[in-house]
Amino acid sequence: MSTKFNRPRIEDVLTQRFFIRPSFDIYGPVGGLYDLGPPGSALQANLLEEWRRFFVVEDQILELDTSIMTKEDVFRTSGHIERFTDFLVRDVVTHESLRADHLLEEFLTNYLAKAKVSDETRAEIEDVIKRVDDYSGEELGAVMKKYNVKSPAGNDITDPAPFNLMFSSNIGPQGNVKGYLRPETAQGMFVNFKYLYEYNNCRMPFAASQIGRAFRNEISPRSGLLRVREFTMAEIEHFVHPDRKDHPKFVTVKDMVVPLYPAPPRDNPDQPREMVHMTLGDAVSQGIINNETLGYFLGRIFLFAKRIGLLPEHLRFRQHGLNEMAHYAADCWDLEVETSYGWVECVGCADRSCYDLSRHEEVTRKGLVAVERLEEPYFEVQRNLKLNTGAIAKTFRQLTNTVKNHFQGMGQAELEALQEQIKAIGSGNLSFTIDGQTHEIDVSYLTITETTKKVEVREFVPGVIEPSFGIGRLLYCILEHTFTLREEDTARSYFRFSPRLAPVKAVLAPLSNNAAFTPLIEKLSADLRKHTIMYRIDDSSSSIGRRYARLDEIGVPFALTVDFESVKNETCTLRFRDDPRSQVRMPMAEAGALVADLVAGTTTWEAVLAKYPLHTAQDV
Amino acid sequence: MSTKFNRPRIEDVLTQRFFIRPSFDIYGPVGGLYDLGPPGSALQANLLEEWRRFFVVEDQILELDTSIMTKEDVFRTSGHIERFTDFLVRDVVTHESLRADHLLEEFLTNYLAKAKVSDETRAEIEDVIKRVDDYSGEELGAVMKKYNVKSPAGNDITDPAPFNLMFSSNIGPQGNVKGYLRPETAQGMFVNFKYLYEYNNCRMPFAASQIGRAFRNEISPRSGLLRVREFTMAEIEHFVHPDRKDHPKFVTVKDMVVPLYPAPPRDNPDQPREMVHMTLGDAVSQGIINNETLGYFLGRIFLFAKRIGLLPEHLRFRQHGLNEMAHYAADCWDLEVETSYGWVECVGCADRSCYDLSRHEEVTRKGLVAVERLEEPYFEVQRNLKLNTGAIAKTFRQLTNTVKNHFQGMGQAELEALQEQIKAIGSGNLSFTIDGQTHEIDVSYLTITETTKKVEVREFVPGVIEPSFGIGRLLYCILEHTFTLREEDTARSYFRFSPRLAPVKAVLAPLSNNAAFTPLIEKLSADLRKHTIMYRIDDSSSSIGRRYARLDEIGVPFALTVDFESVKNETCTLRFRDDPRSQVRMPMAEAGALVADLVAGTTTWEAVLAKYPLHTAQDV
Repeated sequence: MSTKFNRPRIEDVLTQRFFIRPSFDIYGPVGGLYDLGPPGSALQANLLEEWRRFFVVEDQILELDTSIMTKEDVFRTSGHIERFTDFLVRDVVTHESLRADHLLEEFLTNYLAKAKVSDETRAEIEDVIKRVDDYSGEELGAVMKKYNVKSPAGNDITDPAPFNLMFSSNIGPQGNVKGYLRPETAQGMFVNFKYLYEYNNCRMPFAASQIGRAFRNEISPRSGLLRVREFTMAEIEHFVHPDRKDHPKFVTVKDMVVPLYPAPPRDNPDQPREMVHMTLGDAVSQGIINNETLGYFLGRIFLFAKRIGLLPEHLRFRQHGLNEMAHYAADCWDLEVETSYGWVECVGCADRSCYDLSRHEEVTRKGLVAVERLEEPYFEVQRNLKLNTGAIAKTFRQLTNTVKNHFQGMGQAELEALQEQIKAIGSGNLSFTIDGQTHEIDVSYLTITETTKKVEVREFVPGVIEPSFGIGRLLYCILEHTFTLREEDTARSYFRFSPRLAPVKAVLAPLSNNAAFTPLIEKLSADLRKHTIMYRIDDSSSSIGRRYARLDEIGVPFALTVDFESVKNETCTLRFRDDPRSQVRMPMAEAGALVADLVAGTTTWEAVLAKYPLHTAQDV
Repeated sequence: MSTKFNRPRIEDVLTQRFFIRPSFDIYGPVGGLYDLGPPGSALQANLLEEWRRFFVVEDQILELDTSIMTKEDVFRTSGHIERFTDFLVRDVVTHESLRADHLLEEFLTNYLAKAKVSDETRAEIEDVIKRVDDYSGEELGAVMKKYNVKSPAGNDITDPAPFNLMFSSNIGPQGNVKGYLRPETAQGMFVNFKYLYEYNNCRMPFAASQIGRAFRNEISPRSGLLRVREFTMAEIEHFVHPDRKDHPKFVTVKDMVVPLYPAPPRDNPDQPREMVHMTLGDAVSQGIINNETLGYFLGRIFLFAKRIGLLPEHLRFRQHGLNEMAHYAADCWDLEVETSYGWVECVGCADRSCYDLSRHEEVTRKGLVAVERLEEPYFEVQRNLKLNTGAIAKTFRQLTNTVKNHFQGMGQAELEALQEQIKAIGSGNLSFTIDGQTHEIDVSYLTITETTKKVEVREFVPGVIEPSFGIGRLLYCILEHTFTLREEDTARSYFRFSPRLAPVKAVLAPLSNNAAFTPLIEKLSADLRKHTIMYRIDDSSSSIGRRYARLDEIGVPFALTVDFESVKNETCTLRFRDDPRSQVRMPMAEAGALVADLVAGTTTWEAVLAKYPLHTAQDV
């Protein structure tokens, strides 16, 4: 990875073989919008299928599909209207918009590279660069003034102003219903908590998930596929009792050693971070990871990352520092993947405590709570006040309603106090105060009755543990981590996709365009379709070697070739991308089923080599 | 279906069991936005998987995933900016927005129901109602004035004005890049034609497809799930030579009898439509369906509709009449499905001719063309003009450039004419005209040379045949068509989903909450997960009968029950939703594989009944 990785080369393959292209680029592209072409889109579909199998099926998660277009109220409650912003400055001459933190970082980095500065100043500036993400708008403005930051064109810039990153639109023709394109899929799950809980027969804990598009109107997207304006996410919201974050399946991961990059301790926030490799069990018991459920998901995320072809030595879990974490979060870890862009945050895994459901419940009062049976039920006295309204009206006249409201508005605690007072007085008048004015009332006008209720359940607002996957970023990291040069010919590259993830599973190649091969290729095609396998036919007049090179470029794992021997005895040759020197010859009739087994992982290439005779490749 | 169908009842189940709910309804819903809950979302995911298997794998279609947020230019070219509108009127008192055609239709329908009118007037008004969709804005206005149409509140209304149905937004912070949420996925495929064609090794014909979200800002959505503002589509764009619309796989469908509802003949547009049942082969050869490729897709669509559980007797293909079809379209058929809302258009299948690619090519000039090898290559003479610029400058002085431009701007046809003139003159002066002024030039200043080129290929703009599936509408129709009442107890309903489509494949139910059952249920769970099967555990204290009723409501096909016999001999009982009276008892160890086979369709319930002993149900 890192510096040695040849990024222009992979970018060239990605464009040329239409993994990805800027959207509608025949009209001139717009930053941060990309289209996935056939191999990119198939890779994504296979990745999502694998995600579903690994997370949704394994934990029988409740999947949802909610609206992208969302009413403003939802994001007002969630805090996105107020806080989902980046700071923006404008070049006062060109009016170009720039992201303030990026500009500051670039400006100071350039400055350090060019100017001669004292060691002290250098250290000070390096510290500013390190803190760039943490500054408030005012702090950013002050620092930019201090270092006299200019736009890339060398002009003055405006003060930083917050810019909301949500795309907005109007719903319906009236123009009075504002909508936003969701910047994450999570809120669609929170607002449905009540219905999910009921669907789950009111059992806790449980998890919901959603795969879908989200949008962020970035100020000036860069870093290619890593910072885009429209992207696919896969999110899980695991709803849990706030006091019971143990997990029954934690045992399945607790002995796994994972690469952790913990935040500095709270009492020493400037202590440099250090990598530690330790078991999840130790990390949870030592309090490095907050709880078992979080630990369980970190373990699952790590297993998933390896399964989809990411290289474990380029993975780490980076814990959020106190200044990075939302005030309500209990703990948060990002799976970071090392690429030629450096460490890239691909999966977030946060314990968001009860914040989300509490907020929506506060605003809507729709019962976003769960109910638990108390281990020890208790009895609760319920007091009820009856007023002699006729007598009160006679006594208080025009004040009647004020007095009635005063007494009827009393809560249980106030009623209990009143009951004590009445008991103490016995009979006669009791004095009370409304708006600073004292009145008297005959206690016989007030009758307090008691009922006793057995309390067996308690309502609580569940906590949320949220693993959130950036699918586009994972996709890009898979592409970098599986990109390989042929040892025997480094001008040729291939993607070492696992057969399950590979966009195209097999290529069918007749040796030449001899008509005798056509029915055989058709037979193989029909067989592959029967086994739901995506393949391509390459019957171009290029040499077999050139055709292999072409299928390598999109990472096709298997190639079936038909030659003159095939015409005689209905056999074909099978080549595996990662072991191109050992082709086998096999009966055509078995090809579809064998490729299907190889893709599903129910057989291996080694088993194939053991079963079928080797074929001497004329041209690899 | 139709009138007898109990819509409130199915709507009740759909809401109660969280197939679907209005989006963010704890905040008060917004018309036309819905969330799919766990069973709805799983049903949709299974439907899309089936779609991929049936169309994408079968025809090895190139799948894409393009941006939803789209630059304005794309929709200017496609005509959506100008024409993707509905007519809107406003109540002048309440300012409510109303869709003009809907208001007119409702108003006149109510009028006919209440007022006493002559037969002549009735016929006239009925004719207006029938034509409501075809009126221009001016015509709508005139008709509304004529009948003095009022708003539902009884107030005057404004003149109809066009309202664009695309949601708009701004891309980036500058506010100068306008974006629209795509109202269909098709344009994302057209603008990528060049890259798709190259990816396909420049072979024709081929098809691209895309599954994704699209948005339409309806004026006043109604009809529940059938007219919404955000929806999932699945579209295929089959690119084909405009003169060769035969299809090699048409033979596989040509003997299929399909229900056609053709448009009246061109020369008699008022002739009433009549249903015909005929083979696709006959329909194509008689010119009822325009071509084989269109016929092939209609056949495939019909097979797919039956496969996903739609009832064939409630399906028809309705051909667009001349007035409904875009001017460029060659032919267009909709798969309509009969529901309690009447006939619902679910899949469009249009031959859009070369319109889309031609338009984008006209505007961008980016080579959205294919190349074909000519059967008979020909030779083309290329003429090239050389000017004696020194002599021309001397003769024409300040007019030199004008004269040079005049000659250099000549195309091949003009050069050929000039060559003829020069030949005729031989030597001396030739007169020519620029801006109405005649000049003379010595022919020796002009030298025309000829080269001959062999022309072997020709560029052409492909035609497009587009099957376009409204996934949400299909989903709703599946729900209506599979909704069934238990014969023995019509208070109980179930969905007769095919096992492949069913959101949840199996329920695991211990007979009671006896602790002995827990490890058995866990064993079965692990086995089902191993076979990638979604299941639910229902260990509630309800009776088995009630639990069956609950799983029926979400259409779970299989139930595995664990009882005291299970504890003794590790067997369980298996129940099939559609045959609840014939449960079998089987070894637990075989359950996962058997359910997987039943879901995949590699075994049948009949085979299960033949293999395993019947179990007497205590409580169905």
